[in-house]
Amino acid sequence: MTIKDARTPASVQDEPSQKAGKSIGWHKAYVGGSRPDLRVPVRQVHLTNGQSVTLYDTSGPYTDPHVETDVRRGLAPVRDNWIIARGDTEEYAGRPVRPEDDGIKHTAPRGGLRNLDAVFPGRPRQPRRSRDGQAVTQLAYARRGEITPEMEFVAIRENVSPEVVREEIAAGRAVLPANVNHPEIEPMIIGKRFLVKVNANIGNSAVTSSIEEEVEKMTWATRWGADTVMDLSTGRNIHTTREWVLRNSPVPIGTVPLYQALEKVDGKAEELTWEIYKDTVIEQAEQGVDYMTVHAGVRLPYVPLTANRKTGIVSRGGSIMAAWCLAHHKESFLYENFEELCEILAAYDVTYSLGDGLRPGSIADANDEAQFAELRTLGELNRIARRFHVQTMIEGPGHVPMHKIKENIDLQQEICDEAPFYTLGPLTTDIAPAYDHITSGIGAAMIAWWGTAMLCYVTPKEHLGLPNRDDVKTGVITYKIAAHAADLAKGHPGAQEWDDALSDARFEFRWEDQFNLALDPDTARDFHDETLPAEPAKTAHFCSMCGPKFCSMKISRSITEKYGNGGVEPEYDGLALEGMKAKSEEFAAQGNRVYLPLAD
Amino acid sequence: MTIKDARTPASVQDEPSQKAGKSIGWHKAYVGGSRPDLRVPVRQVHLTNGQSVTLYDTSGPYTDPHVETDVRRGLAPVRDNWIIARGDTEEYAGRPVRPEDDGIKHTAPRGGLRNLDAVFPGRPRQPRRSRDGQAVTQLAYARRGEITPEMEFVAIRENVSPEVVREEIAAGRAVLPANVNHPEIEPMIIGKRFLVKVNANIGNSAVTSSIEEEVEKMTWATRWGADTVMDLSTGRNIHTTREWVLRNSPVPIGTVPLYQALEKVDGKAEELTWEIYKDTVIEQAEQGVDYMTVHAGVRLPYVPLTANRKTGIVSRGGSIMAAWCLAHHKESFLYENFEELCEILAAYDVTYSLGDGLRPGSIADANDEAQFAELRTLGELNRIARRFHVQTMIEGPGHVPMHKIKENIDLQQEICDEAPFYTLGPLTTDIAPAYDHITSGIGAAMIAWWGTAMLCYVTPKEHLGLPNRDDVKTGVITYKIAAHAADLAKGHPGAQEWDDALSDARFEFRWEDQFNLALDPDTARDFHDETLPAEPAKTAHFCSMCGPKFCSMKISRSITEKYGNGGVEPEYDGLALEGMKAKSEEFAAQGNRVYLPLAD
Repeated sequence: MTIKDARTPASVQDEPSQKAGKSIGWHKAYVGGSRPDLRVPVRQVHLTNGQSVTLYDTSGPYTDPHVETDVRRGLAPVRDNWIIARGDTEEYAGRPVRPEDDGIKHTAPRGGLRNLDAVFPGRPRQPRRSRDGQAVTQLAYARRGEITPEMEFVAIRENVSPEVVREEIAAGRAVLPANVNHPEIEPMIIGKRFLVKVNANIGNSAVTSSIEEEVEKMTWATRWGADTVMDLSTGRNIHTTREWVLRNSPVPIGTVPLYQALEKVDGKAEELTWEIYKDTVIEQAEQGVDYMTVHAGVRLPYVPLTANRKTGIVSRGGSIMAAWCLAHHKESFLYENFEELCEILAAYDVTYSLGDGLRPGSIADANDEAQFAELRTLGELNRIARRFHVQTMIEGPGHVPMHKIKENIDLQQEICDEAPFYTLGPLTTDIAPAYDHITSGIGAAMIAWWGTAMLCYVTPKEHLGLPNRDDVKTGVITYKIAAHAADLAKGHPGAQEWDDALSDARFEFRWEDQFNLALDPDTARDFHDETLPAEPAKTAHFCSMCGPKFCSMKISRSITEKYGNGGVEPEYDGLALEGMKAKSEEFAAQGNRVYLPLAD
Repeated sequence: MTIKDARTPASVQDEPSQKAGKSIGWHKAYVGGSRPDLRVPVRQVHLTNGQSVTLYDTSGPYTDPHVETDVRRGLAPVRDNWIIARGDTEEYAGRPVRPEDDGIKHTAPRGGLRNLDAVFPGRPRQPRRSRDGQAVTQLAYARRGEITPEMEFVAIRENVSPEVVREEIAAGRAVLPANVNHPEIEPMIIGKRFLVKVNANIGNSAVTSSIEEEVEKMTWATRWGADTVMDLSTGRNIHTTREWVLRNSPVPIGTVPLYQALEKVDGKAEELTWEIYKDTVIEQAEQGVDYMTVHAGVRLPYVPLTANRKTGIVSRGGSIMAAWCLAHHKESFLYENFEELCEILAAYDVTYSLGDGLRPGSIADANDEAQFAELRTLGELNRIARRFHVQTMIEGPGHVPMHKIKENIDLQQEICDEAPFYTLGPLTTDIAPAYDHITSGIGAAMIAWWGTAMLCYVTPKEHLGLPNRDDVKTGVITYKIAAHAADLAKGHPGAQEWDDALSDARFEFRWEDQFNLALDPDTARDFHDETLPAEPAKTAHFCSMCGPKFCSMKISRSITEKYGNGGVEPEYDGLALEGMKAKSEEFAAQGNRVYLPLAD
């Protein structure tokens, strides 16, 4: 990997950590592509031994001190040139923004109150869509053999050839969510041949939280490694919150349009119509939502399959659609109008995330007929979406005990023609509310190892309340662990270099390097300082766990120094013992010192 | 399960949580055995729907308001009657306690300063050992077909027949660690056919912490579910700290005698001798240590195998023995004197935990030749221990990526004749210091599913510092999750009842029951209260996550009420649709209300 624009670490301000007086051991750098406006961000960690480690970076321009960011203006539309150059999209007036879009009723005349400028104070913009109603999707481009700048970007990011990226997208085994109305994103890819990705959910609800908080949660989540963010807002100001999130997000944004549609009919599921839903999808597609969860697999005949479950239907979207089907005794309007929906999504390159509305919400309900009946329908819908060149991923459970996890990914891959799987957890037990980031992190690591492409995070507040800033961070870090553990287990090229660099630093007592290479440098440093705060302890050849006399690493290093790299061959058939005798004498000659001196 | 001595929940004080004004939904109860002094403690959770759930309980008499506990007096020696009745042990004067035992030098005349009474102010006691040097181990009893009170105790605790317990112990597939000098314990069993167990490490070090803190950590760890506790103290007052911990511990205590032996030679590994080590083992066996980690598998010829590792030898015991072997150019004195060691352990029924001194300390070193060479030796030592009727378990790694975990348990089971595996983690990645309870909880759940009998917890401070009270709790809870997830995956009888009870409570909006059934009721309640603190919210049919309009559980319950249990058959071939039409009309007739009223 060639690093361009490398800057000195001293010039970087690590805003979120704000540790005055502490050295920041990494800075933002960029890897250049085939054109000057294609610059792939990386996190460059500088080690005290003069080496450096390059890590994938999701934090966007916020961690680049050379870029001035302002949430009221939004991020620069880096993809605009690429989108315009393709010549297959056009700007248009767009759907007027109505008070109802923000959940505000009866306070203004019908037919449009504000334009997008009013909703967001940043640069003026009109929505864009395909010129002739045809597919302008990365899937369509990939199928006709075209390597887009977006594909080149992710190829550099993933350290693979652009052709691999194109092939995986063309085959439907990967998606590159990138709405033509979200030019601010740094493209990323979701597919089993690539690094496992993590989604973080944010969103206000009728009960709590504000626009500012949601934007802050988004930047905070990406700071710690979220690859995509879903805005699941359900209360007031849905439209405006989403606009602010989109204009400031360097990562793809996902939504569940059904939530907003339900707000528009005052929460009465039976009053939902295809027209209201379609209008909401267009509204969100014009704003730039990159992928949408669509619960089109919750079909009328499947609803009774959930009746004798322990926890019924636990997906919000699934329960809304089930209620609608029951109220009208009709097949789901999402299922019936799926082809028209494909046409809309194709015009903006919105990616489907086919929702698992009937996912199990408890260990008892895992892998039941309701769940797998819906999965078979998702397989059918995936094939339809492909006809329309709409990129598609499939959502997965939920609550699943460990021994039933593999069946989920295997069936999904088989039924859905290897479309990327995007799973929530799964949670491997129900008994630990307040620790469901852990119950689910276990399942997430396993299912990702077996082929899941993206993991939807779970925070400690799952089942209990709305996540705050700390919960978002804990959820993201936990899921980055699960994702990286899976990358290692899958043998993803280069994944182990990170572990090796950290373990080298550990063995060589380079404490600052350990901290800077950690997923969460701040907490690692704080924990160390809690017991041994003195600066000298950061270079000491021991730590508070064992004290100076008991440090295995210290003893072990003396062994390595005696026998390692060119010393005695790693054999133990007796031959090596001869060599060891000599070594033993050396050992005695220097005073049998098994511990290195404390000072460096 | 028959519950005896059930008391009203109101009478129970939940000491550790100390939540004034909050209802405690569980109390300590006992299940009686075949004799009046055999009473197995359980945690009885009382639900608001009148049902109750019985859970395994490790917290000892501390959570029984009818028992007055005093750390200066110690717990009642409940096993004394059983041990004495067997007639195969006798009290004796015992080894005199010396200042060196506590790391105090040159301050008192040699040959014994204090007796055990002085070390611990509680009841006077003399050590006990087998009458004729023969085995007084649970393994010896099991082999001759005897079901001891200890075996009956664990049979009731595990809800299996005493004969299953006896068989598993006799076959060496399970151990029941119970030193004849630790009569205070509530017996427990470690084996793959039983519930997966969790060990918590405590221990002061030369750098920090005190006796009181260690006793407090032990009661705190068992309060949250630790099944055994290892005292890994390395600083001063090792002997006295251990005495206090043992006299107050309701769970088996493990140690690594090598740590104390090294203190006795001032930290100079090369000055260790078999005599000093043996003396230390006897000292600890007389105190009542139930299992001891012995690194007898670190043989001289294996040391060079670690020389080119990324992180060498990371086990403290392993590195000490490696240093000794190198210094003397001799085979390990533990390996050479293993049979004599077996005789000593057999006389007290101390269980071996054969240490994996060469376990990998990084992803790069997992499953290497050093590790597996030692494992083969542990298999050989296990067979020797069995000849002496010494109960034995085998320790396992360490740092292992997910795809290499199964090989570890499979090889261990094969090489060690199915002796119980006792693993540290394993950690599935090296990149997350401060979160190694999670990196390792993932590996722990998996390896336990595949057959590991006991998991050694890892706290968030791993690699960084000594765990404090919060870290101990987080470590134990994380590992209880891993253990229970494995119990579920193994299909352990009754394991899922706990999940089912909690999921039922969740679906029925019984918030208090959800909290009381949670692994950590305090934190679950606090998290809920953070967003919706009002008491009515605890019975509300929604929560802050989705708000009242979006509650899938609420919608779903209305479906269950209409179609569940005797309603429409779960078919979807068209026949069921007819029935649904009628149901749909009913649904409309009552106003299409998909949400239940907010109040109960």
